[in-house]
Amino acid sequence: MAASVTIALDAMGGDHGPSVVVPGAAIALVRHPDTRFLIVGNAASIEPLLEQHPALAEKSEILHTDVAVAMDAKPSQALRKGRWHSSMWLGLEAVRDGRADATVSAGNTGALMAMAKFCLKTIAGVDRPAIAVIWPTVESECIVLDVGANVGADARQLVEFALMGAAMGRALFGVERPTVGLLNIGVEEVKGVDEIKAAAATLKNAPLPIIFRGFVEGDEIGHGAADVVVTDGFTGNIALKTAEGTAKQIGEYLRAAMGRSLLARIGAILAQGAFRALKEKMDPRQLNGGIFLGLNGIVVKSHGGTDATGFASAVDLAYDIASSGVVKRLAADIARFHAELELDGVA
Amino acid sequence: MAASVTIALDAMGGDHGPSVVVPGAAIALVRHPDTRFLIVGNAASIEPLLEQHPALAEKSEILHTDVAVAMDAKPSQALRKGRWHSSMWLGLEAVRDGRADATVSAGNTGALMAMAKFCLKTIAGVDRPAIAVIWPTVESECIVLDVGANVGADARQLVEFALMGAAMGRALFGVERPTVGLLNIGVEEVKGVDEIKAAAATLKNAPLPIIFRGFVEGDEIGHGAADVVVTDGFTGNIALKTAEGTAKQIGEYLRAAMGRSLLARIGAILAQGAFRALKEKMDPRQLNGGIFLGLNGIVVKSHGGTDATGFASAVDLAYDIASSGVVKRLAADIARFHAELELDGVA
Repeated sequence: MAASVTIALDAMGGDHGPSVVVPGAAIALVRHPDTRFLIVGNAASIEPLLEQHPALAEKSEILHTDVAVAMDAKPSQALRKGRWHSSMWLGLEAVRDGRADATVSAGNTGALMAMAKFCLKTIAGVDRPAIAVIWPTVESECIVLDVGANVGADARQLVEFALMGAAMGRALFGVERPTVGLLNIGVEEVKGVDEIKAAAATLKNAPLPIIFRGFVEGDEIGHGAADVVVTDGFTGNIALKTAEGTAKQIGEYLRAAMGRSLLARIGAILAQGAFRALKEKMDPRQLNGGIFLGLNGIVVKSHGGTDATGFASAVDLAYDIASSGVVKRLAADIARFHAELELDGVA
Repeated sequence: MAASVTIALDAMGGDHGPSVVVPGAAIALVRHPDTRFLIVGNAASIEPLLEQHPALAEKSEILHTDVAVAMDAKPSQALRKGRWHSSMWLGLEAVRDGRADATVSAGNTGALMAMAKFCLKTIAGVDRPAIAVIWPTVESECIVLDVGANVGADARQLVEFALMGAAMGRALFGVERPTVGLLNIGVEEVKGVDEIKAAAATLKNAPLPIIFRGFVEGDEIGHGAADVVVTDGFTGNIALKTAEGTAKQIGEYLRAAMGRSLLARIGAILAQGAFRALKEKMDPRQLNGGIFLGLNGIVVKSHGGTDATGFASAVDLAYDIASSGVVKRLAADIARFHAELELDGVA
């Protein structure tokens, strides 16, 4: 573990820019006092905010730019226009050049991925990077990937996602051979999931540092069926959003139910400690952050609309990943198991 | 609306067979006293159960068979072996021959769909049947399809699903032009969703009896973004299962939180009426049943592991669909709008 971790922050990304990024970093710093920050953005906006957080100011350096990547910019546009000067790019560049161990941005996902690939390049042997999230389970947490870096994935890519997710699982959860499941539907003998079947055949037979759990259905993710759940970016994104939407919907039912009668309102007051714990557990801000896996460097994408608490979670995640050595482990795994995968004839 | 509705019940399907099917039918009969039942299965098992439900016995006829389709049978096997004598097949045959208005089975989904296609045939002009479910939203309900009849769907099939879902929405929700959304991910400019984009272009421009809402993300389903949410069977199945799993997971968090302290336990007792209402709202048994759309007849698939309460919900659904005239409306819509779709050049 490095003596200190430096995290570059894209202070112009997201819906709220530095007004969320700076206080978010201040919250994260309390939890990880050995963090240093490179805050990239408009110095005139950042400085007054930093003045309110003297402890953070002491650990931070501002890298000035007034070029922001628009939240609705197309990835190709973002890559063309102003890429050398935007806060998003400069954060990535700091990682590439070793001035930061990770970068966090709440900006446009597509633009961030396009720039990250261009700036950091994919790890040798990795076909496509993926976005991984930490998904809460009944007992603990699991890693789900890809949740939206790509649309569709062939068998080879699914196997690579499994390897990348497992490397992350080993680093974050401290298990030597994480359990891995492939997201699938329960119906047998249906055509079209050939890629998933082929990936399963490889994962079952190849001598990889995982315990392969086979297929996992949608309801088994949160049940904790595997440490790592692998799927293509389209399906993973739909599953993630659907779970978030369902949690929000149930929260609304609960609020409505608790306000309906006097007894229920009194009950809710008595149980408010329990409700607070539940609310925290269900708070999407606690698990804010998608990790870009498969690049030569650490990039964490925060929700664009999050607040300081949510942004702090994304910074925590960047800290954990940076101090866990995931990237090196991942590169080593890919290098080590690439030959095995190739032998298995997966296209 | 027909004077009475006859529903064929596959009494040998599901994990529990007649011990769930018979009491389930008895519950549904109380809600819809004008229902008649054709209970297909082993008479020796069914008769003693019927004796416990005299009101149901009066409205029921038993069609004896002792051939069941195994829960793990492959669809092709189910079609080959014993298809003429199984309880599943005989229920479908009763619909085909006009002796029943609908059939409900808790048996193997793949086998049921294969047999249903073979026995009832698809409606003229429909490429592939779909499975639709009623999905609870914050304010009301919506229809989601396909949730697993097919894996993958081309643009033409997605448009047909939209038409079928809209016909169901008109019949069930009583709205003349249901709102329709296409499930998609938020990331712009990614390749691979060409089918969805092409379907969107057709739905936007064709003079169909719908209000097209464009793309809907996973978290917007439960938010009530559209009356009908259209997706391919793989994605729809993953989304449905993920939502069910998340609801169950949150239920477990809630139970744990409410048991943790004395105050919380007292609060939970005071608020028990509210909790009961919430539990009912979140009870997956309340919305048990997938409707096979696009066939010349009504087939409802119940969860295999459900209890009598859940099976009764599936019977309710069959009753609602049978008395709403969905199938005729759907056939008329497909016939009427087929030409428009063809003109639009969707392959």
